[in-house]
Amino acid sequence: MRALRLTNDGPILDTGYPTPRPGSGEALIRVRLAGVCATDIQLLAGYKGGYRGVLGHEFVGEVVDAPGHERWMGQRVAGELNIGCGDCDLCRRGLGKHCHQRESLGIIRRDGAFADFLTLPIANLHPLPDALPDERAVFIEPLAAALQLLEQCHVRPDQRVYVLGDGRLGLLVAQVLARTGCDLIALGRTPAKLAILTECGIATARTDEPDNLRQLLAHPADLVVEVTGSPAGFALARRLVRPGGLLAMKSTFANALPSFDISSLVVDEITLIGSRCGPFPPAIRLLAEGAVTVEPIIHARYTLDKGVAALAHAGKRGVLKVLIEP
Amino acid sequence: MRALRLTNDGPILDTGYPTPRPGSGEALIRVRLAGVCATDIQLLAGYKGGYRGVLGHEFVGEVVDAPGHERWMGQRVAGELNIGCGDCDLCRRGLGKHCHQRESLGIIRRDGAFADFLTLPIANLHPLPDALPDERAVFIEPLAAALQLLEQCHVRPDQRVYVLGDGRLGLLVAQVLARTGCDLIALGRTPAKLAILTECGIATARTDEPDNLRQLLAHPADLVVEVTGSPAGFALARRLVRPGGLLAMKSTFANALPSFDISSLVVDEITLIGSRCGPFPPAIRLLAEGAVTVEPIIHARYTLDKGVAALAHAGKRGVLKVLIEP
Repeated sequence: MRALRLTNDGPILDTGYPTPRPGSGEALIRVRLAGVCATDIQLLAGYKGGYRGVLGHEFVGEVVDAPGHERWMGQRVAGELNIGCGDCDLCRRGLGKHCHQRESLGIIRRDGAFADFLTLPIANLHPLPDALPDERAVFIEPLAAALQLLEQCHVRPDQRVYVLGDGRLGLLVAQVLARTGCDLIALGRTPAKLAILTECGIATARTDEPDNLRQLLAHPADLVVEVTGSPAGFALARRLVRPGGLLAMKSTFANALPSFDISSLVVDEITLIGSRCGPFPPAIRLLAEGAVTVEPIIHARYTLDKGVAALAHAGKRGVLKVLIEP
Repeated sequence: MRALRLTNDGPILDTGYPTPRPGSGEALIRVRLAGVCATDIQLLAGYKGGYRGVLGHEFVGEVVDAPGHERWMGQRVAGELNIGCGDCDLCRRGLGKHCHQRESLGIIRRDGAFADFLTLPIANLHPLPDALPDERAVFIEPLAAALQLLEQCHVRPDQRVYVLGDGRLGLLVAQVLARTGCDLIALGRTPAKLAILTECGIATARTDEPDNLRQLLAHPADLVVEVTGSPAGFALARRLVRPGGLLAMKSTFANALPSFDISSLVVDEITLIGSRCGPFPPAIRLLAEGAVTVEPIIHARYTLDKGVAALAHAGKRGVLKVLIEP
């Protein structure tokens, strides 16, 4: 089959990669559509200490083989990316996504979705309703990551909330938080991206305009979500949260922050919340209901044959979601 | 009056310091007993950018003047240390302890309790029941700081909890957390201090014994409370918390951590909670009920005349609570 592999020489399209075989309890899935995520770009830059294998973890597919689970045959599905060992303390407590032995589709020791086929455990799959087209369903994984914030924080209508970062994930996070009725302002630096949120009725402000920034800093928020992907963004997010407030972090940085004043978190009683993958079922429901706008977030669509070009495009500054179709 | 002042040349006993006058809505309080806290020691070392004034914020006293509030005359009281401006956004939302214009008794622009007298707003005072002797009441402020953890975290019987640090505050934190029914182990390096907790029926372990430490790291906790006061303690606390778990921080360090991997908090979905001052009423109740053991935590008692020696004693390694009596 064809597969977009990350090698020591960078990403290559391998046209003779062996089609994976489903293990016990697993399904073979034909990929219908996949999305490029910031994590894929970080993997190209060396994040996770050098993953080598097929990239991609956001996808929609169709089950084409499921030994012992025939009722899944032909089912259109999305799939969760983490595969725990099933037997450690964490897995036994339902924390399999944090299992130290875990595989993660296209990230840790498990070939990913930028290919004709992939395998995943049946337990990771979610059937998709017919009303949800592939072009929306491919956003299930990142929307779930955005929804994870609401699993972790009780966001209230009385709260002022800033979402800092207008990238792929930031635009989803802002839409999810807006639904809580909180006093939300989405912050970014790119008018065209912020305009997507304005269209959704969400207030926005540009942090690269000094007057705006002064105004924002004078009214720090109860909750700030940091989704810029840059250490400088983290420093600004910290300044934008009020004493006693919450700072939720969605960004992973390839490098550690140079220095960080932990004591200030104690004195100001800030709560820092690390937030990663989230629940698929509400993401599927909200996308099927049309409750989240994703169409303007799609900036390009490539065939798998042009997958190397798709990654390069997605890595460019200002580019939002790039899709890859096998 | 006599007052233990922090000057550019260190702490001195001033025997001719002017007795403070209560402002509008304030009381003049004769200090009966005061306690030396780690924050006092940090102030001596330059924390908070050089506080200069009378030290001390843990105290029991008696109201001797309260213009317009005569019913408080003669009342034995404890007092909260933060005094907000009363008019900013934070104060108006009940977050006066975080007011940017705040004074803090013996810490920020308000003379403290290592003196014959102090003043505080009536709103900061809590009457004390007769059943609560001064020697226990002087622990109200640090016990409130320990209880603040329970205001911020829902600690459950099903959770494994480590309290890291067997200093003054750590011994109170461990006793407070033990009451939740959680699976608690108090961690420290000083057998004599840990023995105080063993007497209370609390499991303890020494982190300076490699076999113990290996065992603890193999079973990371749902909640770790960092109360060591040292950056090295913070690093160990981080390693002791499980993915998806909570790391509560009570320590303030004079210096920033040299480097800190924020991304690991995202990937492991760790929640970091900064925790400072807490609620006085439950602290008063628990101390009056005899529910918390404080007597063995008292290591020395000095008169105010020997206050400089008291501070030196309290700053020595391994010394717990030092009391100062005017």
